[in-house]
Amino acid sequence: MALTDTAVLDARLAAAKEASLRLATATTAQKDAALEAVARILRERAADIVAANADDLEAGRERELTDGLLDRLRLDEARIDSLADAVLEVVQLDDPVGETVSGRSLPSGVRIDQVRVPLGVVGAIYEARPNVTIDIAVLALKSGNAVVLRGGTAAEHTNRVLVEVLRAALDSVGLPGDAVQTVDDFGRDGARHLMQAREYVDVLIPRGSAGLIRAVVDEAKVPVIETGAGVVHMFLDESAREDWAVELVHNAKVQRPSVCNALETVLVHRASAERLLPTVLDRLAASGVLIRGDERVRAIRPEVLPVSDDDFATEHMGLEISVGVVDSIDDALRHIRRFSTKHTESIVTNDLGNAERFLNEVDAAAVMVNASTRFTDGGEFGFGAEVGISTQKLHARGPMGLPELTSTKWLVRGAGHVRA
Amino acid sequence: MALTDTAVLDARLAAAKEASLRLATATTAQKDAALEAVARILRERAADIVAANADDLEAGRERELTDGLLDRLRLDEARIDSLADAVLEVVQLDDPVGETVSGRSLPSGVRIDQVRVPLGVVGAIYEARPNVTIDIAVLALKSGNAVVLRGGTAAEHTNRVLVEVLRAALDSVGLPGDAVQTVDDFGRDGARHLMQAREYVDVLIPRGSAGLIRAVVDEAKVPVIETGAGVVHMFLDESAREDWAVELVHNAKVQRPSVCNALETVLVHRASAERLLPTVLDRLAASGVLIRGDERVRAIRPEVLPVSDDDFATEHMGLEISVGVVDSIDDALRHIRRFSTKHTESIVTNDLGNAERFLNEVDAAAVMVNASTRFTDGGEFGFGAEVGISTQKLHARGPMGLPELTSTKWLVRGAGHVRA
Repeated sequence: MALTDTAVLDARLAAAKEASLRLATATTAQKDAALEAVARILRERAADIVAANADDLEAGRERELTDGLLDRLRLDEARIDSLADAVLEVVQLDDPVGETVSGRSLPSGVRIDQVRVPLGVVGAIYEARPNVTIDIAVLALKSGNAVVLRGGTAAEHTNRVLVEVLRAALDSVGLPGDAVQTVDDFGRDGARHLMQAREYVDVLIPRGSAGLIRAVVDEAKVPVIETGAGVVHMFLDESAREDWAVELVHNAKVQRPSVCNALETVLVHRASAERLLPTVLDRLAASGVLIRGDERVRAIRPEVLPVSDDDFATEHMGLEISVGVVDSIDDALRHIRRFSTKHTESIVTNDLGNAERFLNEVDAAAVMVNASTRFTDGGEFGFGAEVGISTQKLHARGPMGLPELTSTKWLVRGAGHVRA
Repeated sequence: MALTDTAVLDARLAAAKEASLRLATATTAQKDAALEAVARILRERAADIVAANADDLEAGRERELTDGLLDRLRLDEARIDSLADAVLEVVQLDDPVGETVSGRSLPSGVRIDQVRVPLGVVGAIYEARPNVTIDIAVLALKSGNAVVLRGGTAAEHTNRVLVEVLRAALDSVGLPGDAVQTVDDFGRDGARHLMQAREYVDVLIPRGSAGLIRAVVDEAKVPVIETGAGVVHMFLDESAREDWAVELVHNAKVQRPSVCNALETVLVHRASAERLLPTVLDRLAASGVLIRGDERVRAIRPEVLPVSDDDFATEHMGLEISVGVVDSIDDALRHIRRFSTKHTESIVTNDLGNAERFLNEVDAAAVMVNASTRFTDGGEFGFGAEVGISTQKLHARGPMGLPELTSTKWLVRGAGHVRA
């Protein structure tokens, strides 16, 4: 990369850092005013956004993107309107900054308080979904952070206008527009620079395919919050109620198959396979789900396709499912340990001991008994808005809301106290 | 590295992972029994430990280690006794595992609970201080984690015996000895392997010099908790009380100069420089502190050595201090922003507005008013034992106790609940 490019990128990151100091001490009222301005200017500039989006769609068609990808890329007036409504919902959320997490007076009389503070500068790397530009920026700003965006070349024209909207909104209420920066005009070099910039960027959040997240985790020097893939299992225990098994599997797979908390694999205890599989599989097949199964599944349902270890390891994001019969809860736990991406795992059972074992022994962000895996969601959990679902163990695990975009600091107040 | 070496290292890490599953569900009583056994076996094998330590000291003298380093390396009967006592203190601490952090019933009746769980496998990379082998392993085990140790070649013989002690203690109470592993016999290859092993290791904690920590942060693929250096400042504001300024600066610098919360730089408001500096500097000089100052300091005290930006950026770990005069609190904040390692910063003032500005605007793990920076410490904060002091913003910030060696998971309990 040319030295001048490096200098331009560093200047932008430094500007974000400088602006983050201002954001960190902004009041909730100021930040909410900025968000209301974002919603207003989004609607005012809807025509410009649609026009820029048309350029991206045109380029996407030339590059022969799939219809699914083109649909993710599309912003029309109606979608812009929903996006603006979503911004106003974030205004309603509690501001996490300033919350006292813990506090006490030490025996010496020194007072210590642990309070929430913004992380500083949040980097976001994502793909071809221009709505994420607004989502992530708005969540970062509400929690007092500056943000540096890398939204991918496919949405380049749209994102350019959206960044203008965000910066204009900040400026309009007297907060620094520099709190929103983009590195999109530097392509992959911009992304690489962002990933290395420990001096300026406090955390990186990748959102997108497993491949994108893996690349960021591998390459970044800035700390990453991994929002990962979901190879999600449901284990139908010997004592599982048939009606629950049927509806839970169906809901978890079919209600919204393209998301990370959708079900990928059903494991059935051998003692309940004959009892449960016919109705469970019928209900799935009736919704057009492609079923793959192991030998013991196929002994019950010969028309089912064979399943491979690769299938068991795959997040399909669509109407496909893998089914296996296991000899015991131990076998189920072993299978899950081998293939789980540690997102969400569920057991259907009426056996209290097995329910408790499953809850205790499964290592995942969410572990469930007799509930659909689709419940792992910031909205369902009552967080209001969701930054993503963390599948890592440090800092945040499971659905992340605004508090997960903050750190803490210790405020220590003495009256000339020295340590003995 | 030879393929067989890689296989041996992977087998050890896999054994740690497997053992971590057992530790994760061990009761507090079982883990405490293991820790009591560690203390007992440490005392029983004191002679073996001292003999192995003699080999390390001999090798250290041949390699011409400084007296300071040799002293850190030394374990005699008395130190082994204190180490065993410290293990018994950890027994007294609350077990964080199983604590419910938050919980609620969702409108649908689904119950969600966020509970603390162990991280899994904790990797520790440290240097030439064999007591850290026991410290970190005991804290990891108490919080339900397995641990993989890399303690450096200088303490190799001692650490070998200490790992035997830890494993024997676990075995003696029916917990898996494999929960404690070492990669020391593979030298730097072992350390490198540990840093890359995302599949097996959940978090890496480097403890030691700034150089060691930097190397781990740069090289590791496993998430790192950075326990960093402390370039710690104290700002003497215009309204600072003279007696407090004198005693706070002295305590922060002199009470234990070799630790990370010790003071490195004093900044004085120009309006109070004439009033405060003579007594502040006299008190330091009387304790043998080497003082460096800028031009305005030297105008008041011509015998003071000149100070450079390099001095302002250095953690001296000894009886040296840098002193500068600033024009305003803004100048002080700017200096701190430039040179702070974000560990601990303190203001001495009687101005309420300036105290609040300092608390709000300084970005550090601990920000203080009228208190000695030496208070940033797990023991002082009432945490009982300290894993280290985190200078990063994700996961943990400031003194880390046992809860910082845990993650959480969401337990979700339904009765056939599906998502609408």
